[in-house]
Amino acid sequence: MTITPDAPAQVLRTAYQKAVADYWNSEKDPVNLRLGDVDGLYHHHYGIGDYDPSVLEGPEETREARIIEELHRLESAQADVLLDHLGPIEPGHRLLDAGCGRGGTSIMANARFGCQVDGVSISESQVEFANAQARKRGVDDKVRYHFRNMLDTGLPTGALQGIWNNESTMYVDLFELFAEYSRLLAHGGRYVVITGCYNDVTGGRSKAVSRIDEHYTCNIHPRSAYFKAMAANGLVPINVVDLTAPTIPYWELRARSSVATGIEEPFLTAYREGSFHYLLIAADRI
Amino acid sequence: MTITPDAPAQVLRTAYQKAVADYWNSEKDPVNLRLGDVDGLYHHHYGIGDYDPSVLEGPEETREARIIEELHRLESAQADVLLDHLGPIEPGHRLLDAGCGRGGTSIMANARFGCQVDGVSISESQVEFANAQARKRGVDDKVRYHFRNMLDTGLPTGALQGIWNNESTMYVDLFELFAEYSRLLAHGGRYVVITGCYNDVTGGRSKAVSRIDEHYTCNIHPRSAYFKAMAANGLVPINVVDLTAPTIPYWELRARSSVATGIEEPFLTAYREGSFHYLLIAADRI
Amino acid sequence: MTITPDAPAQVLRTAYQKAVADYWNSEKDPVNLRLGDVDGLYHHHYGIGDYDPSVLEGPEETREARIIEELHRLESAQADVLLDHLGPIEPGHRLLDAGCGRGGTSIMANARFGCQVDGVSISESQVEFANAQARKRGVDDKVRYHFRNMLDTGLPTGALQGIWNNESTMYVDLFELFAEYSRLLAHGGRYVVITGCYNDVTGGRSKAVSRIDEHYTCNIHPRSAYFKAMAANGLVPINVVDLTAPTIPYWELRARSSVATGIEEPFLTAYREGSFHYLLIAADRI
Amino acid sequence: MTITPDAPAQVLRTAYQKAVADYWNSEKDPVNLRLGDVDGLYHHHYGIGDYDPSVLEGPEETREARIIEELHRLESAQADVLLDHLGPIEPGHRLLDAGCGRGGTSIMANARFGCQVDGVSISESQVEFANAQARKRGVDDKVRYHFRNMLDTGLPTGALQGIWNNESTMYVDLFELFAEYSRLLAHGGRYVVITGCYNDVTGGRSKAVSRIDEHYTCNIHPRSAYFKAMAANGLVPINVVDLTAPTIPYWELRARSSVATGIEEPFLTAYREGSFHYLLIAADRI
Amino acid sequence: MTITPDAPAQVLRTAYQKAVADYWNSEKDPVNLRLGDVDGLYHHHYGIGDYDPSVLEGPEETREARIIEELHRLESAQADVLLDHLGPIEPGHRLLDAGCGRGGTSIMANARFGCQVDGVSISESQVEFANAQARKRGVDDKVRYHFRNMLDTGLPTGALQGIWNNESTMYVDLFELFAEYSRLLAHGGRYVVITGCYNDVTGGRSKAVSRIDEHYTCNIHPRSAYFKAMAANGLVPINVVDLTAPTIPYWELRARSSVATGIEEPFLTAYREGSFHYLLIAADRI
Amino acid sequence: MTITPDAPAQVLRTAYQKAVADYWNSEKDPVNLRLGDVDGLYHHHYGIGDYDPSVLEGPEETREARIIEELHRLESAQADVLLDHLGPIEPGHRLLDAGCGRGGTSIMANARFGCQVDGVSISESQVEFANAQARKRGVDDKVRYHFRNMLDTGLPTGALQGIWNNESTMYVDLFELFAEYSRLLAHGGRYVVITGCYNDVTGGRSKAVSRIDEHYTCNIHPRSAYFKAMAANGLVPINVVDLTAPTIPYWELRARSSVATGIEEPFLTAYREGSFHYLLIAADRI
Repeated sequence: MTITPDAPAQVLRTAYQKAVADYWNSEKDPVNLRLGDVDGLYHHHYGIGDYDPSVLEGPEETREARIIEELHRLESAQADVLLDHLGPIEPGHRLLDAGCGRGGTSIMANARFGCQVDGVSISESQVEFANAQARKRGVDDKVRYHFRNMLDTGLPTGALQGIWNNESTMYVDLFELFAEYSRLLAHGGRYVVITGCYNDVTGGRSKAVSRIDEHYTCNIHPRSAYFKAMAANGLVPINVVDLTAPTIPYWELRARSSVATGIEEPFLTAYREGSFHYLLIAADRI
Repeated sequence: MTITPDAPAQVLRTAYQKAVADYWNSEKDPVNLRLGDVDGLYHHHYGIGDYDPSVLEGPEETREARIIEELHRLESAQADVLLDHLGPIEPGHRLLDAGCGRGGTSIMANARFGCQVDGVSISESQVEFANAQARKRGVDDKVRYHFRNMLDTGLPTGALQGIWNNESTMYVDLFELFAEYSRLLAHGGRYVVITGCYNDVTGGRSKAVSRIDEHYTCNIHPRSAYFKAMAANGLVPINVVDLTAPTIPYWELRARSSVATGIEEPFLTAYREGSFHYLLIAADRI
Repeated sequence: MTITPDAPAQVLRTAYQKAVADYWNSEKDPVNLRLGDVDGLYHHHYGIGDYDPSVLEGPEETREARIIEELHRLESAQADVLLDHLGPIEPGHRLLDAGCGRGGTSIMANARFGCQVDGVSISESQVEFANAQARKRGVDDKVRYHFRNMLDTGLPTGALQGIWNNESTMYVDLFELFAEYSRLLAHGGRYVVITGCYNDVTGGRSKAVSRIDEHYTCNIHPRSAYFKAMAANGLVPINVVDLTAPTIPYWELRARSSVATGIEEPFLTAYREGSFHYLLIAADRI
Repeated sequence: MTITPDAPAQVLRTAYQKAVADYWNSEKDPVNLRLGDVDGLYHHHYGIGDYDPSVLEGPEETREARIIEELHRLESAQADVLLDHLGPIEPGHRLLDAGCGRGGTSIMANARFGCQVDGVSISESQVEFANAQARKRGVDDKVRYHFRNMLDTGLPTGALQGIWNNESTMYVDLFELFAEYSRLLAHGGRYVVITGCYNDVTGGRSKAVSRIDEHYTCNIHPRSAYFKAMAANGLVPINVVDLTAPTIPYWELRARSSVATGIEEPFLTAYREGSFHYLLIAADRI
Repeated sequence: MTITPDAPAQVLRTAYQKAVADYWNSEKDPVNLRLGDVDGLYHHHYGIGDYDPSVLEGPEETREARIIEELHRLESAQADVLLDHLGPIEPGHRLLDAGCGRGGTSIMANARFGCQVDGVSISESQVEFANAQARKRGVDDKVRYHFRNMLDTGLPTGALQGIWNNESTMYVDLFELFAEYSRLLAHGGRYVVITGCYNDVTGGRSKAVSRIDEHYTCNIHPRSAYFKAMAANGLVPINVVDLTAPTIPYWELRARSSVATGIEEPFLTAYREGSFHYLLIAADRI
Repeated sequence: MTITPDAPAQVLRTAYQKAVADYWNSEKDPVNLRLGDVDGLYHHHYGIGDYDPSVLEGPEETREARIIEELHRLESAQADVLLDHLGPIEPGHRLLDAGCGRGGTSIMANARFGCQVDGVSISESQVEFANAQARKRGVDDKVRYHFRNMLDTGLPTGALQGIWNNESTMYVDLFELFAEYSRLLAHGGRYVVITGCYNDVTGGRSKAVSRIDEHYTCNIHPRSAYFKAMAANGLVPINVVDLTAPTIPYWELRARSSVATGIEEPFLTAYREGSFHYLLIAADRI
């Protein structure tokens, strides 16, 4: 199926969405580009797992390269954990990478499952970049990126076996989002999200969380919002994993790297004070 | 009726509430204190109406005093507009100033209506300060401030004829808040709120709005949230007034004053780009 | 776009709707026709603003004509206030006059904004009359009236920048109505309603309100119903104006005119006793 | 248990309720009083079943008395059908007659089941009248009438095995009413209502229904409202009986009697045109 | 209108549905086949009414035949009661027999009303069998059975005047089912269900009810679920009839017959202990 | 705090609850008693983890004892995993074991955290048994079991830091249950449930699941019901763990033991066919 390109006006419906698209169209953070250069998997999410402390030691001239590689390894590890939760995917299935960024997770999913993967992003630059990568790897017959709004993808009803958001839900209303996924997923299809969410237990949005919101012009949801919006849209959790502790080492290493963007401190503060969680949810479409 | 003081643990239930209380307990912004010194009405809200441009002209040595006085005049004008919407209040009625700050609006309400006014705040310093002011003015038999959480005031059911929030709703969940007000207000009682809210039409929380959130550790609600939470709690609007245009002059004058705190720019940006409204809602308890 | 005419069976789905259509198909009240004759703007709504007391004085032979003209001026003033709340409308936009009657407000909207206006009514006589007026004024390329049910207009999704009901919501279920408007309005589109609604605060439908219901075979809603139905359908108020006091003079003058229909007394009673409000609500589609 | 009398201000909370109470406090319709005089059972509801056509024949001087007696027989038959649906009631149980009027159904229930019956009304005259009747019959140790609002009876939680409304629900909001009943009824307790309701199928409130509303200052609900409000409050129907056809003879006879009040025609029109139903619903508290 | 056959994968969406279809595809219970052979009306539901005790007496060699005939008579009587509640059906109307089994009720409906009847079943064998019966009777131009899922019939919106489920709702979610019916029925169309439901008053699913669930791989709903799902989908009851007492004789007779399947005892236990009701609900689409 | 004993009528409100209480009052399954005898921890739940295959080998005379001990080890391992998810519990905290059975998990919780634990059960025999165990271990000052209904515990509001259900939720309505927990838990308190639930993805209740329901007179919920009821009651998941695979070995071993009850096969079938999950959910009270 060919997806007819949408006009920008259809994809970017609000001033807010335009601001987000502008941000990502012009974004060239080394933490995304230089890490992606390591092996051509360009990620727009964070990492999990302990880093190898030896990367901080040894010859200074290659230290930065070692750190970059290690950060990238942790980000790919995170994407692998996400894909582990998609359930049994077969080559004839079809997947959606919602908020695909420069497309790294889509490539990994296709490599693992051999199936068709569509990515959508409201950043035309990201879509173009990601499609170029797919062509370069010769998987553009199976992996395609589209300039689309994930709230209104235009994809056919019931056609998808799996959908994921790898840190991209903080830009949208979850009720609208999961209504669209409810439409897109086949009965029994799987949805997986990895996201930062603020902790309803500690109360409202903390100062550190607001700083992250401002940095990315995003709108971090409380943890409760995910479960309310899923319950309202026929998505039933089967796994919920708290990745907060496993993601802290990544941020500690990144804070000490040359590619730090300044947002490391709010993340570490928020995670450590408990006002913020890094959460994976896997849910079935019923 | 005497309100037995609550233990701090009962009033401050979450880490978030403690952080907010800490902020206001130690806050000594000249924009609040110096303006209050003008006539002893200490406000914690912004102003409306055109400023007199002449305050910017004339002798430099008194220019600052003229600006301070003018800013204070605009803030008191805002409180007057709020009180105008409470409906007919009689001396035997009872009012609640929820999130009372240093108590200015309560004093004005008592002066206007002659009735009992209770203010509640989660900042013990504010409560102490405000009670001292009431004593100083000799109205402490009618105007009393309490160290209380507005989500759980401990006030008797159906006892209040009027409640207002003058820029204090962004610290709490509106559904919880209006459930408490629904309990507190007599049938036919009136609720008035003046608040900044972000604009659902422009989309998610803009960068400027997140900067305000971070500055005050608050959590600005979308405009829609007010009407949803009212509809769910028996509060029916009778007036909704968009005060965005009338509040811009206040911010422009404040930005040029010595008491500017730095938050002026995000407010002006947010108002001008349309991502933020300054709204008054008056609603009846049914 | 041409709207294919619906068969009457599709437009008039219930016995109730047929009764309402019959009423308006045969209605020839001078209060509507003679006032419309003044300048060719035929209204089916009431007026606001103070009347000029001098119309009651002076030569008796022209007194009635003066009163008629004054009543018509107040009705047009009401329509102007409605149009003031539509927000910035451009010539390329498209508007809907829902429950358009003999079409006066549509003509005024087109004259003010230069854009396309569609009116819908379940009275075929009204539609015919209104289209004849549009042709007479030479605006029938832009202003078109249709024999349609406003609960199911057949107009395209997201195509409208503005919709209004000028005293026509008391014939329909508001949840059904606003669901249709939610479908019709573009994101950020504006809805404006002027309506009489009974007051939840004074309690159930008063005797005077029931008399109005019987007169028009209508079903006046409580004020709360408007806000609940909007909250449920993505319509967020930005202005709510209580027009009760401004509409009373109109009724007082009308009660003294030759075109009084007998319904003046219940209206005046209901407004004065507080069991009834004349309300304007402007809301944004989000 | 003694029920402490409420102050009028607690019982009559709105202008609407005061108007209704005034109506019933001064009401002395022969259709209620003269029929009650037949055997001392004073009803405030209508009848069901075919009338004996012979009452219209025979000597003129006793014709009126025959008709009165026959109307009363049909009203008592209606109350009997209501009581038939209360399920097995034992002498130790407790029942509530909500909107008890002059108390006839309570007396019948006590006579049938031998148990305690409490009646509530917002008309002090009715309460006084009904208590006098109970004393006269020597059942005032078991049957007691209270000046109370059925929305807020003050009766203890879970204490009642049965509650009924015999044509008194059109004065209140059904969601509020059933919430109170849900509190009052024991698990497995039974609620029975006989009521006129307008027909959602024919559409909005017809002209005849509005005339009834105006006559009684009441607010007839659509049929759907009963089922929605029950579903929301743990009341599950076990019987629904359409009494429309069986009630028509009563109205036809009444229209021909000396005690006709003028409201007979709207009732007959509404029933015959299908815009109105006379419905019995029996439901269990779960 | 021709209904294009669905592929099995579209009709049978879950493992559960496949298990149910398998059960009915291979089912050849004499209680269904031998009773149907009596007059060619094959039912898949139970009976109501008292049986003629004489069938148990008399010559032994024809006793079994007498019982079979009597059971069949009671089942047809049940179907007649169902059809009695459909309201006035005209030859031009269209009806749906949802979960039609081998088609008996459809044949009876067509014979009574002369109109088109569509039956749907997820058992291909049943559909085939039923269509063969229709051809045999020469009514296959009006009565057609389809291999379809009643949750998603593919029939046109608003096209049906009546729908019924004769003991087939325990296989599906009622909210999904009634959403589909809400779509299918014309405004004012009628829905009738006869079903066994467990009693919310006695509490959770009793042992006897679970035995029935296991026997038929079904999922008996609580009584409350029917009313909640109707309230949520625009279906308003007009009749609710408790058929529990009238169905017990059928089960007693069946328990003594040669066609008893072993499920008679749980049914009798459940009905007698009050944990289970046999209910008819007739509701209007509004 | 002493909990005043409730009368049985207050605890056992429905016929269903009485049937469940009767079952457990008379239950003396060796699989519960003989396993408990191993170390005095009496469980009423299943086990997780691989069993040691060597228990099936070696001398026949002690084989049964080895299997019993191994099954018990797996059950205690399950309880340990449950307690691992309660979050940081301090000696001053208070916990609730809802549906405590013979009390094993309460004893383990007290041993681990040193805090007060209250258990509630509707089986008086279980409560008596469990209290005897607590006395025997000398922990009856801290661990107390009560004859109470978990839907209405009578425990004070906000007093609990943790609550768990170890396989006891299938006897109650989850919305009612979680409403009570929402009341009981302190802000930030933790709820943990381990339960079997049927799989919404495979569809309705399978035959194997119905057999389990019948065996225990219970009412297994779909997985989705847990998340809906939590979302409606302020309980937000932080961990969801699918224990289906880890529990299968326990059932396989049990099927080969002398304490098998016959329910092993339905459990194994249900787990293997995917119609049933063994799930742990940990959620925070917000």
